[in-house]
Amino acid sequence: MSLSPTFFIGFVYAISAISLLFALYLARKVLKSDTGTAQMREVSDAIKEGAGAFVRKQYTTIGYLAVGAAILIFVLYQFGLKDSNAMKVTIAFVIGAAASSIAGIIGMYISVRSNIRTASAVRTSLNGGLQMALRGGAVSGITVVAMSLLGVGGLFAIYGGLASAGAAEATTVPLQIIGFGFGASFVALFAQLGGGIFTKAADVGADLIGKVESGLPEDDPRNPAVISDLVGDNVGDCAGRGADLFESISAENIGAMILGMALWPLFGLYGILFPLVARAFGLIATIVGVMVVKIKEDEDPMKGLNRGYFVTTVLAMIGFYISVYFLLGNNIWFFFAGVVGLITALAFVFVTQYYTEYRYRPVKSIAEASKTGAATNIIMGYSVSMECVGIPVLLICAALMASYQCGVHALAAMPGLQIAAHNAGFYGTAVATMGMLAPCAYILAMDTFGPITDNAGGIIEMSGQPKEVRVRTDRLDSVGNTTKALTKGYAIGSAALSAFLLFRAYIDEVEKYMVKRGITGVIRVDLSDVATFVGALLGAALVFVFASLAIRAVGRAAYYVINEVRRQFKEFPGIMKGTQKPLYGRCVEIVTAGALKEMILPGLLAVLTPVAVGVLFRMFSPTGSLAAVQTVAAMLMVGTITGILVATMMNNGGGAWDNAKKFIETGQFGGKGSDTHKAAVVGDTVGDPLKDTAGPSIHVLIKLLSTVSLLAAPFFL
Amino acid sequence: MSLSPTFFIGFVYAISAISLLFALYLARKVLKSDTGTAQMREVSDAIKEGAGAFVRKQYTTIGYLAVGAAILIFVLYQFGLKDSNAMKVTIAFVIGAAASSIAGIIGMYISVRSNIRTASAVRTSLNGGLQMALRGGAVSGITVVAMSLLGVGGLFAIYGGLASAGAAEATTVPLQIIGFGFGASFVALFAQLGGGIFTKAADVGADLIGKVESGLPEDDPRNPAVISDLVGDNVGDCAGRGADLFESISAENIGAMILGMALWPLFGLYGILFPLVARAFGLIATIVGVMVVKIKEDEDPMKGLNRGYFVTTVLAMIGFYISVYFLLGNNIWFFFAGVVGLITALAFVFVTQYYTEYRYRPVKSIAEASKTGAATNIIMGYSVSMECVGIPVLLICAALMASYQCGVHALAAMPGLQIAAHNAGFYGTAVATMGMLAPCAYILAMDTFGPITDNAGGIIEMSGQPKEVRVRTDRLDSVGNTTKALTKGYAIGSAALSAFLLFRAYIDEVEKYMVKRGITGVIRVDLSDVATFVGALLGAALVFVFASLAIRAVGRAAYYVINEVRRQFKEFPGIMKGTQKPLYGRCVEIVTAGALKEMILPGLLAVLTPVAVGVLFRMFSPTGSLAAVQTVAAMLMVGTITGILVATMMNNGGGAWDNAKKFIETGQFGGKGSDTHKAAVVGDTVGDPLKDTAGPSIHVLIKLLSTVSLLAAPFFL
Repeated sequence: MSLSPTFFIGFVYAISAISLLFALYLARKVLKSDTGTAQMREVSDAIKEGAGAFVRKQYTTIGYLAVGAAILIFVLYQFGLKDSNAMKVTIAFVIGAAASSIAGIIGMYISVRSNIRTASAVRTSLNGGLQMALRGGAVSGITVVAMSLLGVGGLFAIYGGLASAGAAEATTVPLQIIGFGFGASFVALFAQLGGGIFTKAADVGADLIGKVESGLPEDDPRNPAVISDLVGDNVGDCAGRGADLFESISAENIGAMILGMALWPLFGLYGILFPLVARAFGLIATIVGVMVVKIKEDEDPMKGLNRGYFVTTVLAMIGFYISVYFLLGNNIWFFFAGVVGLITALAFVFVTQYYTEYRYRPVKSIAEASKTGAATNIIMGYSVSMECVGIPVLLICAALMASYQCGVHALAAMPGLQIAAHNAGFYGTAVATMGMLAPCAYILAMDTFGPITDNAGGIIEMSGQPKEVRVRTDRLDSVGNTTKALTKGYAIGSAALSAFLLFRAYIDEVEKYMVKRGITGVIRVDLSDVATFVGALLGAALVFVFASLAIRAVGRAAYYVINEVRRQFKEFPGIMKGTQKPLYGRCVEIVTAGALKEMILPGLLAVLTPVAVGVLFRMFSPTGSLAAVQTVAAMLMVGTITGILVATMMNNGGGAWDNAKKFIETGQFGGKGSDTHKAAVVGDTVGDPLKDTAGPSIHVLIKLLSTVSLLAAPFFL
Repeated sequence: MSLSPTFFIGFVYAISAISLLFALYLARKVLKSDTGTAQMREVSDAIKEGAGAFVRKQYTTIGYLAVGAAILIFVLYQFGLKDSNAMKVTIAFVIGAAASSIAGIIGMYISVRSNIRTASAVRTSLNGGLQMALRGGAVSGITVVAMSLLGVGGLFAIYGGLASAGAAEATTVPLQIIGFGFGASFVALFAQLGGGIFTKAADVGADLIGKVESGLPEDDPRNPAVISDLVGDNVGDCAGRGADLFESISAENIGAMILGMALWPLFGLYGILFPLVARAFGLIATIVGVMVVKIKEDEDPMKGLNRGYFVTTVLAMIGFYISVYFLLGNNIWFFFAGVVGLITALAFVFVTQYYTEYRYRPVKSIAEASKTGAATNIIMGYSVSMECVGIPVLLICAALMASYQCGVHALAAMPGLQIAAHNAGFYGTAVATMGMLAPCAYILAMDTFGPITDNAGGIIEMSGQPKEVRVRTDRLDSVGNTTKALTKGYAIGSAALSAFLLFRAYIDEVEKYMVKRGITGVIRVDLSDVATFVGALLGAALVFVFASLAIRAVGRAAYYVINEVRRQFKEFPGIMKGTQKPLYGRCVEIVTAGALKEMILPGLLAVLTPVAVGVLFRMFSPTGSLAAVQTVAAMLMVGTITGILVATMMNNGGGAWDNAKKFIETGQFGGKGSDTHKAAVVGDTVGDPLKDTAGPSIHVLIKLLSTVSLLAAPFFL
């Protein structure tokens, strides 16, 4: 601990800046690559334009909502709370929202430009395509993590977190940057909802009208919704998941810093800075990991990606050890906690594979049930989707208990300190979360890899390339499907592990406010209390109703697509004959308008419910009572538990339905075109809005519940 | 309060005995009625035999399991705890299990004999059929409630609850009869699971093989599975729901008596006896309510049933007032709490109607979504099913808060007593539960009405009666579908309201044991504690996995049916030609064996998980710690919350899918036989195992979690 805190915050900035430069370098390298034939560019330009139009409109809408929220936050903090930090909180919110938006937009920008370069590269070499797609994805992943670090670390320093005056000053700073986390969540919620609705509305709409009504094959250029479908892959998976992980990282960093405050006597500023430093090492690990990925032409591309993941994990673990050595007094127990997190990440990846790949029993059973029709396919899929929460929950429980014990042991190894064992235990769970999230930039790169290769496949298909090229893109595309599923498992796993950290941050924060206002008492989220139990019930119900609205939004927006495509077919008969180009842009506009309209209701429900519950319970409880704070805490916790379960159910269930269909398409149970296959297509369609809209939106909901409660907590006292 | 406790317990016995005599009178009256033509008797006899065979086998299996459980309980209490009450607890368990079984068997016995008498009566008059079916159902309803009262009240007196020695003695007696509640839950779990699996396996199997593979119409006598299907209606809905409500009433009575112990200084024995007395008045109200039901030939039968329900509710409310007057010191706030319960019951009925009848938006939206195929039907139904937890949760929250406040006000009206406000509040929620359950015998009669009329319709159809008779039975059958849906809403509502009461009973019980063992500390189910949070996560996951297994069990058992029917068609070609009778009995045997085999795994999971969690956490926590108790409490509470949501989702979702199909069959969107209809049939089939197997089984699971925890609690300390 001979190096000063200023050194470490400087280290974090430096690594973040270097990473951004590296991302810029990657982006330039990608952009300089070959863009294939004119036909390919035509398709790609249409995607680019569509995605650009959507992103502009979406972020404009989000911008309006965010400005409204910012004004509300300022007014309430300034005049409601008479808090002298009102401006700081508001500025943090604005910066968080802006940084998240910029990260999302940059990711999208590169992604819709990497697709055609991947398509072009794949014409000559599988390795070239793989590297192009992964590097395009890495621009997103690295930018997201670096921006989050710069934002949180920068605000911490600017707001005086490094002032050596001591505990009093430094320990209130993380509370002032809570706004950053909420800003990130706020943008992520609407980005994921809007993108998720767009992607599935376009997909379902294109499928229903194309395959079912008009008998067109997938990605047929005569289908006016086909470009919308390809645009959707980008806006849902890239922009949405990018924003999701941006807020995850930010919220978890801030939460861990708040928990670090409780260990002030032990580590001082180092405990608060640890999460940022560990994450910075993760960035370095990712850069190396991305660069080592290389495959032979006849090798499985997944193997290449796995090698990169392995390198990243090992390097991140070394970085973690270094961080523990310098910042946490070389207390080996904290390193163990981090290892628990890394192992949990690996275990989640395996479990997700088991439930979503057709090599294993669950997907096979769905495929087999399709033999007796769509109904039995759905029943079996429903059953599998509910079953697959079991093992992940056991893993989370084990990780929580183990990392908590690591924290307690870490404290026991440093006797004589006036710190409650549970605070060290909670910090242990936070360190485990840091461990789990260490390789997250790499994971995000693999995730964005998915839509890029998917798009590349679409471009190759629509521009009529030779069969051997299509086979190669199909290989990349199928790897992309796997990585997308794995990323979702990883995201929900880290959300689950970090949930506990965010609850504790909420409680620690409220306790600070209690001291400030001279309120005595102990906060307990005791379910045997009626009001707390009611909060728990409401939290669980919120997840269900939110998911319901998200699913329905897809259905509604898909109807707009269907009607528009019908109109085009009717008004321009040349489209079906292939003599006239469909109005792709018009279709994109329709889905955009539909998705943005439909995202408002679930979005507001998520943001306003915890605030409304807190304020209402505050109004009807006696002054100085902790009822409202506790009710919201219960809502948060049980909402999170329910969210973890429902999201896992939807993500894995949707993935299993998808791959059951793919399994049949490999020739099983009658193969493509058989009645069994038709039944499996129904399951696949049902799974789509679950796994790509509702499920990922619940990830964001879970964290938004935490960040909005953190921000609104002072109003509940 | 001038009348002695002995008077009131005598009153409870007398009313229960009179009710049983009345049930006997009703049963004799039903059995003496006309049994129609020989052809009708032939069908009915087949159902009777099939149901008899299933019930014998099922209760034999349950009997073995129960004997095993009884031995385990005795050994653990006697030698593990060295509890001098081990024998009492075990005997209570055995009596509870036996009483539940007897109530279920009697209900089934009458139900499979009422069906043909209803069919026969309906040939001459709609009113005759209605009265026959309702009275047949009332035998079940009244027997279940009276047996529960006799069991709980009898054990209370026998175990010395009336000894005037005072608090010390009386307040430990309810703890000794906890075994009765667990016995009832134990039987109910397997009865509902086995019955639920049987009924849907037979239904799905018969449909898939009949309608889909062989093109036979519903209830066609050539289908070997058709009798199994009719048997299923009885064993699932009658025996299953009867056992479910038997354990509900028993568990809630015992729980309320335990809460009454906390008010000992206020009401003495009266507070403990109040639940039994209020329930006895409900029995009288039901008897009158059943007898006043009568309709004109051209009237809607539902109106007649509603009149009876109204009379029952009003009388029950008067009885409630009298009970409050004599036993709770005429404290009007407790009466208000009861009214809250009665209003909640009504509100649940309305909300259930809104979500499951095709007059309203949700079902209509599913029907409309069927126009674009099975996938959109399922997506919309999925969305509706998740949405429909919202309002019920708000209702439950309102009822809990309101009745809690009633309790607090009731105490405030009696100043100067050394009772904590929250104990009075909890008793308020218990009184509301009593209010909600007051008309439950009538509700159960309406529920059993469903399978009786369904069977009557089947008998009329299979024996080839004239069209006008079939129209009449169809009218009764459709009312039966409505009452079945309403009952499920009512059952889950009362489960939700009573959940809180059962948690409190668990905590009160543990506190008694803590005093006994000299353990100090306060039990808190504080979710911000890691172990407690882990318990909560496990409880939520348990519900999902249990539901998954229950759904899958249906699919597996249905396969047995399909294979058997295929075999019969192949080996006896005369069956399809109508020259040979199918082997109905063989099919019933197959489903029976399948259902009983498949019920074991989910059943054991439900019983063993809370015990395992409690014992494991006990082993790994320091002596005298409350960790294990609190972890199980969290598991119980969050499991209950999740269970309420998932069961509501499945019950209402299944009902909505069912009625969306029926709506289309009225001629909407192309009517019967159209593609839209085919899509809706998929939804209906998917909804079946949800609403008739998994959903109702979760009702039982919720209460079983409570009763098993109550029984096992001393091992967690």
